[in-house]
Amino acid sequence: MKDARPGAAGARMTQGGGAGGDGGTVGELLGGRLAEAAEAFLRAASAMGGSGPDAMALRAAVRGLSPLLTVFGPLLNRSVADPLRSELGWLAAVLAPEPAYTRKAVRLAAALDVLAPVSAGERGENGPGGQGGAESTIRPGVLAGHPGVPKARALLERQLTLARARAHTAALQELRSSRFHALADRLSLLASDPPLALPENAPGDAALLPCLGAAYRSLAAAVRELPLARITVPYHGDALRTAPEDPDEPRWRRTRDRARAALRARAVCAPLLDELSNRHPTGLDELTELLAMAREAAEAAAGAAAAATTPRITPATGYVLGVLHADQRMAVEAARYAFSRRWSHLAPEYDRADTEMAQG
Amino acid sequence: MKDARPGAAGARMTQGGGAGGDGGTVGELLGGRLAEAAEAFLRAASAMGGSGPDAMALRAAVRGLSPLLTVFGPLLNRSVADPLRSELGWLAAVLAPEPAYTRKAVRLAAALDVLAPVSAGERGENGPGGQGGAESTIRPGVLAGHPGVPKARALLERQLTLARARAHTAALQELRSSRFHALADRLSLLASDPPLALPENAPGDAALLPCLGAAYRSLAAAVRELPLARITVPYHGDALRTAPEDPDEPRWRRTRDRARAALRARAVCAPLLDELSNRHPTGLDELTELLAMAREAAEAAAGAAAAATTPRITPATGYVLGVLHADQRMAVEAARYAFSRRWSHLAPEYDRADTEMAQG
Repeated sequence: MKDARPGAAGARMTQGGGAGGDGGTVGELLGGRLAEAAEAFLRAASAMGGSGPDAMALRAAVRGLSPLLTVFGPLLNRSVADPLRSELGWLAAVLAPEPAYTRKAVRLAAALDVLAPVSAGERGENGPGGQGGAESTIRPGVLAGHPGVPKARALLERQLTLARARAHTAALQELRSSRFHALADRLSLLASDPPLALPENAPGDAALLPCLGAAYRSLAAAVRELPLARITVPYHGDALRTAPEDPDEPRWRRTRDRARAALRARAVCAPLLDELSNRHPTGLDELTELLAMAREAAEAAAGAAAAATTPRITPATGYVLGVLHADQRMAVEAARYAFSRRWSHLAPEYDRADTEMAQG
Repeated sequence: MKDARPGAAGARMTQGGGAGGDGGTVGELLGGRLAEAAEAFLRAASAMGGSGPDAMALRAAVRGLSPLLTVFGPLLNRSVADPLRSELGWLAAVLAPEPAYTRKAVRLAAALDVLAPVSAGERGENGPGGQGGAESTIRPGVLAGHPGVPKARALLERQLTLARARAHTAALQELRSSRFHALADRLSLLASDPPLALPENAPGDAALLPCLGAAYRSLAAAVRELPLARITVPYHGDALRTAPEDPDEPRWRRTRDRARAALRARAVCAPLLDELSNRHPTGLDELTELLAMAREAAEAAAGAAAAATTPRITPATGYVLGVLHADQRMAVEAARYAFSRRWSHLAPEYDRADTEMAQG
């Protein structure tokens, strides 16, 4: 470790010297967070009553814990961390569908509200419009007054409510399984004895910051796999140039997962980063948000397409679902475009942070 | 008229001095062009045989002549030019539907080919794809393999072929009317005696260039009526934030008409403009093209929406038409976005040219 680096301008990211101890030890920072996340998990699991565990709280705990096991894996005992990560992955998959259907229902209903506002009269009361309305932000929708809209709305609500209920039941089933109980046992152990591979009192900065740097590097690597050159052009039309399955989606999902992991790792490292805020890569929240928007729009588009395959719907319903599908695919395109534009400005910051943190 | 203008950098647009006569007289430039256009009209009209006049050649002649009567109106006898312009407007409306249906059919078929390529195998033979295909330009379409595609394709082809045939018959009917024959008589007069309000041998530049400047000014005025501030943001979403009728469409159509008129007027003035090429506003062809693209996509979108109202189509057909409608509305948005971006760079040139030509 060098004490003076060219261009480092006095900020020191990877070792704190005197300040390092102030930031916290590995035990306080990583051990503490792991224990907290495990306890949140156990609280949610033990809400187990007539209605079963609190699935949403469980999901939040899993989403808080899993990235830590990934990002800080090098600091953990693999014999404990690896199987735990794998079982948390299983549980995440069990818990994901129910809230996904909720998001989908909310998003598609909102999109229909925009494409077909409830009534022109109501719209007029909400804002300027009309006179000189060229610059007004309140615009009618292309499906305004279309007979398929109420039917499509009802169909989507019915289908997604049903799917959500089924997903809920299926998840509860799994939460009564011995596999879930074994996972809860593992988490009891984690809460009382975080599986650190380093001494608890090792200084946090030298251990944790290289992992955070690697998380940024991993995000940047995932972004490099994306078709950014194509995406950064507005109206590139990719949104509708996909097979029923979007071939880029896995790459985008991986990028989103890594952005989330970096975000979570950054929170753990927060006490170490105060003095470095000016060197720290910015925009991670915004990037993560754009990736989430793209993902939600992609899910909603698939939901509209799936609803259109329902037997015996009217052609008007089919038409409305087609417009809705394309509308959501366009939202995917817009969010990916916004991400790529943002990234093109931020990438150098991530590259710089990687290098500096990796030296720690 | 000032002989030396600040910033004019030696180029002189509005009067040629010695060079002015070289550019041509009003009679040569405007009179000659009017006569040519009228003769083209009469040739097309006299193709009148078993199958009637050559409607497409007639339409081209009308499109060539009408803008001249508008842009150079101040140089013409109003008693002749005004009724002629009005009657040419009538004929343009008579002749427009048939080619519009052709364009619509071609465009929608092409869009379906992109959204649902005929077969993945055929696509593979045409280009790279596959390996490292993230950057490949060949992408599958969101409707690939969808059962509604062949039905939608056949429906559109049937409907648009029928509509085109009806439009053709209706146009032929009008071309046998006494109104058309009266118009042809007016054009015979025009061909032999262009209704110039100035002496034939008046220098062309002092007369014509201010009219061309006014045509640019008129285009710029139409552009100012457009919601450019909104449109210049990519993915602004206006394309689908329209009622079944796009409230902005009339403004865009007027802008397109004025761009076309300026283009046509520029061609008439070409002999006067050689030495001024560096001062002349650029990009008019491109702007006109983008406006035409937006218009064609809007027409195609309306065609898809109209086809979706056909009774007894399948829901799958309705769905495909909904996607197609949204796809074309997005093409409208993309073309308008491209126009507004281009205009934001070019506007100063049009403003400058206006001022200089108006001084002539």
